[in-house]
Amino acid sequence: MNMLFRVRRIGTTSIHNQVREHIVAAILGGSLLPEQKMPSTRELAISLRVSRNTIVQVYERLAADGYLSVRDRAGYFVNCEAKTGWVRPEKKGQQPPARQSVWTRKLKFHPSRQPYIRTPLNSHSYPYPFIYGQTDPSLFPISEWRECSRLALARSEVLEWTGDAIHQDDPTLIEQICSKLLPRRGIIATPDQVLITMGAQNALYLAATLLASSKTTVGIENPGYSDIRNAFIREEARILPIDVDAEGLVIDDRLRDCNLVYLTPSHQYPTNVTLPLHRREALLASAAEHDFLIIEDDYENETNFVTQPIPALKSLDEGNRVLYASSLSKSMFPGLRIGYMVGPADFVAEARALRRQMYRHPPANNQRTTSIFISLGYYDSHIRRLREALRERWGMMKEALAEFIPEASTAATAGGTSFWMQGPTSLDAQKLADAALARGVVIEPGKDLFYGSHEPSNFFRLGVSSIPTDRIRPGIEILGKTLRSI
Amino acid sequence: MNMLFRVRRIGTTSIHNQVREHIVAAILGGSLLPEQKMPSTRELAISLRVSRNTIVQVYERLAADGYLSVRDRAGYFVNCEAKTGWVRPEKKGQQPPARQSVWTRKLKFHPSRQPYIRTPLNSHSYPYPFIYGQTDPSLFPISEWRECSRLALARSEVLEWTGDAIHQDDPTLIEQICSKLLPRRGIIATPDQVLITMGAQNALYLAATLLASSKTTVGIENPGYSDIRNAFIREEARILPIDVDAEGLVIDDRLRDCNLVYLTPSHQYPTNVTLPLHRREALLASAAEHDFLIIEDDYENETNFVTQPIPALKSLDEGNRVLYASSLSKSMFPGLRIGYMVGPADFVAEARALRRQMYRHPPANNQRTTSIFISLGYYDSHIRRLREALRERWGMMKEALAEFIPEASTAATAGGTSFWMQGPTSLDAQKLADAALARGVVIEPGKDLFYGSHEPSNFFRLGVSSIPTDRIRPGIEILGKTLRSI
Repeated sequence: MNMLFRVRRIGTTSIHNQVREHIVAAILGGSLLPEQKMPSTRELAISLRVSRNTIVQVYERLAADGYLSVRDRAGYFVNCEAKTGWVRPEKKGQQPPARQSVWTRKLKFHPSRQPYIRTPLNSHSYPYPFIYGQTDPSLFPISEWRECSRLALARSEVLEWTGDAIHQDDPTLIEQICSKLLPRRGIIATPDQVLITMGAQNALYLAATLLASSKTTVGIENPGYSDIRNAFIREEARILPIDVDAEGLVIDDRLRDCNLVYLTPSHQYPTNVTLPLHRREALLASAAEHDFLIIEDDYENETNFVTQPIPALKSLDEGNRVLYASSLSKSMFPGLRIGYMVGPADFVAEARALRRQMYRHPPANNQRTTSIFISLGYYDSHIRRLREALRERWGMMKEALAEFIPEASTAATAGGTSFWMQGPTSLDAQKLADAALARGVVIEPGKDLFYGSHEPSNFFRLGVSSIPTDRIRPGIEILGKTLRSI
Repeated sequence: MNMLFRVRRIGTTSIHNQVREHIVAAILGGSLLPEQKMPSTRELAISLRVSRNTIVQVYERLAADGYLSVRDRAGYFVNCEAKTGWVRPEKKGQQPPARQSVWTRKLKFHPSRQPYIRTPLNSHSYPYPFIYGQTDPSLFPISEWRECSRLALARSEVLEWTGDAIHQDDPTLIEQICSKLLPRRGIIATPDQVLITMGAQNALYLAATLLASSKTTVGIENPGYSDIRNAFIREEARILPIDVDAEGLVIDDRLRDCNLVYLTPSHQYPTNVTLPLHRREALLASAAEHDFLIIEDDYENETNFVTQPIPALKSLDEGNRVLYASSLSKSMFPGLRIGYMVGPADFVAEARALRRQMYRHPPANNQRTTSIFISLGYYDSHIRRLREALRERWGMMKEALAEFIPEASTAATAGGTSFWMQGPTSLDAQKLADAALARGVVIEPGKDLFYGSHEPSNFFRLGVSSIPTDRIRPGIEILGKTLRSI
């Protein structure tokens, strides 16, 4: 039996765990057979060049866990019960799937064919990743998160959250959101008006599923967030694209035809302009007059660098016509997937019932860890540091763009984590993106964010949230040269 | 300023964190004002009866985090920037919502009105919780999970999973599922045929959304799993309830009319009977002949106590007509919400695109922790221990039922975590449940699991997964008496 494998001395997996993992894989994978005698602890220690004590501990633990059995004086053997419950395929020859399976022929729609911004998945391996929506892991307070995770895993806490919560949220997280996060956006809400979701995206998806149908006309910003537009289209709603100018969504008579309006007033996606107070009031007046509902995606509300943030649209909402969605993932780490919606309690109850069918609830351990992270004030201090770091990058970016790419224009904004660039009319931003990528610069062409008969090709987006500060100037310089070379 | 609060000496939150949490809440909540002088570390230590050193550390940390500012010799003050970015409501008087908001009047459907089994949410506070789907927290290997969580939070691992994975899964988890979990169900799959979902429930929901419409006829087991039936109904599919007998789904000519069949072959939900091999082969032959697709919910495949488990239906699927769904949450802890689907790669790609719109991906930290948990063999040993514990409870339950409730019958099964009970025809199980609850016994009436014009009222379910072993006999004895008293 060959038990040799390379023990890594560097890295995060302990030698104990490496040896354990290797033996378990050999047993489950069948290269160690039931009843087979294991090498003695001395032999294995010598061949792997690790301490004998480590091997003794691994064997003892594996015996306690039922992988090995120990026989007096004869040593350790693979437990014949270790694979109890395993079965082998009844028949051989599960066919490789045909090029198109019978399944895709029977789909009622093809979500993969809907347009959205496609970013190279390995964008961080390029030197100049000007991409949006990713965070810089070096800004994330990992030791604080680790502490909160440890606290959430204390036995007394665990008893509270391991069960199937069915449709409930962690009441401690709801409390933190109501008492610490919503007040700074000017929103007062009771716990029954709040639902935890898998990121803001999921809050929007739930709302679209509940409200949109072939009888619904939905007003959306143009350009705008393609993923929510896709969700409305999936529900067969009629899409009414509404122009965005230097002040955001244009409020005019076209809103009259809408049943629902979706917008991003804090920083319009993708132009980053902020909807001023007079437009917010006009929008709410129009909603009351024409009986439409509003979905507010309070996107990047933490990233105002020039002016003070202005309150959420929801804080002005005396007629209860605004459903509010926001995210914690973006400011913490996107992989966390925690967001929330705030709306009338009866609507939130329906969204909760739909969420129950969809996936029950966001994972309880993450809800509890996040709740502790906020309650200890780590969220707040993280946001402050993040804002400082982003403000610096945003300022450098503004300067670099003025210096190296003066031929492209961008709207005056109060912040955000990206710049929405309008190139010369003749520009094909996809070609620019391809040429830039070959030089190590990742940018996102903006065509798929437009909706309608004429989608301009000369827009692109440059994100600043994940590129290291010292790469901004050289990256923009290369991009400027690339732009002039194509 | 009153900084007095009760420091808890018992519990999981350290004194440092309690003091920190209290001060942060006071600053953010406005009871400590910007520029306000903090009490000296000595004063506060005395008034709270904690060591001065603790207070010094809390103050230093809060200063580093921007909550406090320190002035030489004058001590600590509340930082005037601590609440930067906060805003106050622009207008007062956000109205309390009307009894029915304008939102619910505009809903296209009301998910909260769909029938499902409603279990008391605080069922664990009753002495005899015979409920299904909850786990006994004492069986969960919390120290192993804590170890894996710590490993996943090592800095080198964190860099891999904090980013927005957009639509990708953790490749290490996919590898563990393909190499260690699927083979024991007889399934061979490549990574592109697997999608991680928020529990098996979410895999079923994604499939229903992609495949069901008003043009679809869906065959479902009757009685059967109400949450998936509700999802099909939401998509306006025609539901064809198909009888379940002692061998599970009855395979006959009615299947001819189906476009899609949903079933739980391992342990039928809720009767727990197992579909024998000859019926599985007949079902697959019928699917090929009548061109329908099959969704296999491989529900509770780990809980066979009498016979060896038989391979998944998917393992027999030469024609690629079976979509397979399974869950990790149920065997670990339900709050985790991790499951997966296995199907043809092109269908899985569409499900992935839909999942991207719905919520992007299951949280990356949980995916990595689960992957480490499986790779170290903890999952396998946990399943073995869980099976032993459940086998014991299941056997005790069988005996207790024969002794104390002989007038109710249950199907012969090979295991499961619950018993499906048929009471006398005249029984109203809801009345039984109410009367039992008053005596501390929680059971679930089964009416909502039936579908059709006549839904019998004399069925109920008794779960064994979360009740302590020594409560089984006395609980069933009380239930038997209750049954005869009403």
